[in-house]
Amino acid sequence: MTVYTASTTAPVNIATLKYWGKRDANLNLPTNSSISVTLAQDDLRTLTSAATSESFEKDTLWLNGKEESLTNKRTQDCLQDLRGLRNQLESQDASLPKMSQWRLHIVSENNFPTAAGLASSAAGFAALVVAVAKLYKLPQDMSELSRIARKGSGSACRSLFGGYVAWEMGEAEDGLDSMAVQVLPQEAWPEMKAAILVVSDVKKDTPSTQGMQLTVATSDLFKERITSIVPKRFVEMKEAIENRDFPRFAEMTMKDSNSFHATCLDSYPPIFYINDTSKKVIRLVHSINAFFNETIVAYTFDAGPNAVLYYLEKNEEKLFAFLYKLLHQVKGWEPKYNKEQLNGFINTFENQYKDKIEFFIDPELYQGITRIILTRVGPGPQNSEECLIDQSTGLPK
Amino acid sequence: MTVYTASTTAPVNIATLKYWGKRDANLNLPTNSSISVTLAQDDLRTLTSAATSESFEKDTLWLNGKEESLTNKRTQDCLQDLRGLRNQLESQDASLPKMSQWRLHIVSENNFPTAAGLASSAAGFAALVVAVAKLYKLPQDMSELSRIARKGSGSACRSLFGGYVAWEMGEAEDGLDSMAVQVLPQEAWPEMKAAILVVSDVKKDTPSTQGMQLTVATSDLFKERITSIVPKRFVEMKEAIENRDFPRFAEMTMKDSNSFHATCLDSYPPIFYINDTSKKVIRLVHSINAFFNETIVAYTFDAGPNAVLYYLEKNEEKLFAFLYKLLHQVKGWEPKYNKEQLNGFINTFENQYKDKIEFFIDPELYQGITRIILTRVGPGPQNSEECLIDQSTGLPK
Repeated sequence: MTVYTASTTAPVNIATLKYWGKRDANLNLPTNSSISVTLAQDDLRTLTSAATSESFEKDTLWLNGKEESLTNKRTQDCLQDLRGLRNQLESQDASLPKMSQWRLHIVSENNFPTAAGLASSAAGFAALVVAVAKLYKLPQDMSELSRIARKGSGSACRSLFGGYVAWEMGEAEDGLDSMAVQVLPQEAWPEMKAAILVVSDVKKDTPSTQGMQLTVATSDLFKERITSIVPKRFVEMKEAIENRDFPRFAEMTMKDSNSFHATCLDSYPPIFYINDTSKKVIRLVHSINAFFNETIVAYTFDAGPNAVLYYLEKNEEKLFAFLYKLLHQVKGWEPKYNKEQLNGFINTFENQYKDKIEFFIDPELYQGITRIILTRVGPGPQNSEECLIDQSTGLPK
Repeated sequence: MTVYTASTTAPVNIATLKYWGKRDANLNLPTNSSISVTLAQDDLRTLTSAATSESFEKDTLWLNGKEESLTNKRTQDCLQDLRGLRNQLESQDASLPKMSQWRLHIVSENNFPTAAGLASSAAGFAALVVAVAKLYKLPQDMSELSRIARKGSGSACRSLFGGYVAWEMGEAEDGLDSMAVQVLPQEAWPEMKAAILVVSDVKKDTPSTQGMQLTVATSDLFKERITSIVPKRFVEMKEAIENRDFPRFAEMTMKDSNSFHATCLDSYPPIFYINDTSKKVIRLVHSINAFFNETIVAYTFDAGPNAVLYYLEKNEEKLFAFLYKLLHQVKGWEPKYNKEQLNGFINTFENQYKDKIEFFIDPELYQGITRIILTRVGPGPQNSEECLIDQSTGLPK
């Protein structure tokens, strides 16, 4: 049995201009363009190996060690497109193995707990598409592949690039012009860091696809968001990124998160993703920026209560003086900083800031937060030497 | 010393189409028309006595037993208008005492704890204006007086009428056409009841005047609300009230509350009035309506976390089966219902509904709620036989 394999990683991305609303649910075509920052893969990534062989009997996925069905429509749409492209190659070169006709085995692993409530579907579909494209030796570039990943999960298209990424909504009915492009590679603005505050919440959220459909159908304010507010902000946020203008980027990021959650609240029945802990984080961020009289940190919230804070490396000491003081009880600091550095944050707070603070610091904030993930802007999908599939059996190692 | 006195009560009103935004902060002219229900005064009212005498030395207010300044601009604007109207009478009839030149003593008491966090300024300014108008024997009708009360506190103008009240925003720069009118007297739709869930919250809200200004200045979605959404809803909600169409009235009430809080969230920095307990109440209301497959109850939230639920008397048993089951621990039931009636609600829940419930009932909801106030639609300001001022001294009794 000949088993062909290929492996790749793909990153998580967190939108700063939110994707919320589908104009075509079948093709995952959005009602507006969006922008995101790709996060470093040391902390958050999916590793996916794809294998194919004439002897495989059915498409099969092993996700984090568990066998899962590959028959869901979204995955099949992606695989069908990839097989179509492979088929074009095979028809041009008869010597190629007829992989487009064979079944696939996919093995995928995240390096972060799914319990963290971080949207892993973007990294998952990006890795799936890239791994299979590599297996098939497809010539398509990342933007072209992003159209396929988009069909799996809208925001997955943005995980095909590193750095700062735009998903252009496009206009075509078939979605051919709805794809991701890179606004700026991470090397051009590498100082961007992110702190993810994982917020405890017992209540299950409305799934985002269902939530989007409800907002599109019922929110009176939503139309204004997609027709006037986001198109203007899309241009301005790209400019802010190109100019590496953090305060402007940060302000638009916060406003867009609020605008998105406002349209959720304006849906009927209303959808709530942010909770009282999220609100405390929002208030804290505004207080810190007011304290320094400068926008040094931005918050953004996806379809859940977790806060993602963006800040520049040069302001880390200022930010962490507050953040570590308030959240030293939660896990996630120690893999990144040693005791001395952590004590430094506390000392900065106690010696330089404490006496000047005029805002309310909630000493119980940490109770609503289960962990902090400290990361930064990072690259797109990477070739992986590690293969999760046993070449001799075609099964997970 | 001759002391002239007059006394009145005035009710609280709770908007179902929200007033949020001033186009003229000085005159309290709103950016949109609004609608409210006036609540019964057995439960919530201000009683105000006004006195004047040539011998009084300064305008003085005693509010709930405490002497307070009457020099704030809003109150002085009201008093100046009232004195102007009195002055017109005096200039037409020289035999009248020259009250317009004399100082005023005002004594005012609420029959509900201000700690409840219920906006008492509407009832307070309405009672102030009506008491002084009565003292001055002014011929102006309630709509004309509502223009004056509006200058004290915007929503006060709606407390000049009972039943269902519209505040027409008007267009004039001087605010002469911005006043309250009655949509329907309470006798025409007396079945409307209200349950106020007083929600505990440690955090002080952004004061509403400050919040409004911030929303007007910074929310991108706000303009859409006031130019397209509210004008349409104003016409439709008046129609729903005139037709006594509870489901339609209820749906618009809920949507408008959500729309208002969405624009607060879209402000920068965002304003939060509803908290996690408020959200649980919102979810519960939608679940109850879904359970009965009929809109039997509506929620609305002002600039704070307290929920006001509107429902029709005929549906009380259905609603209270859930509400008393979940909130029997909070105070406020027993003055209105005896043990047998309260047990009846529990029995209805246990015997008729419990086994059919498919939604999540949060057994800890009561922990976020400090009391329930059970009331209904009620009349406008009432003459009061009780006078809070000692006729011989001109001071509080």
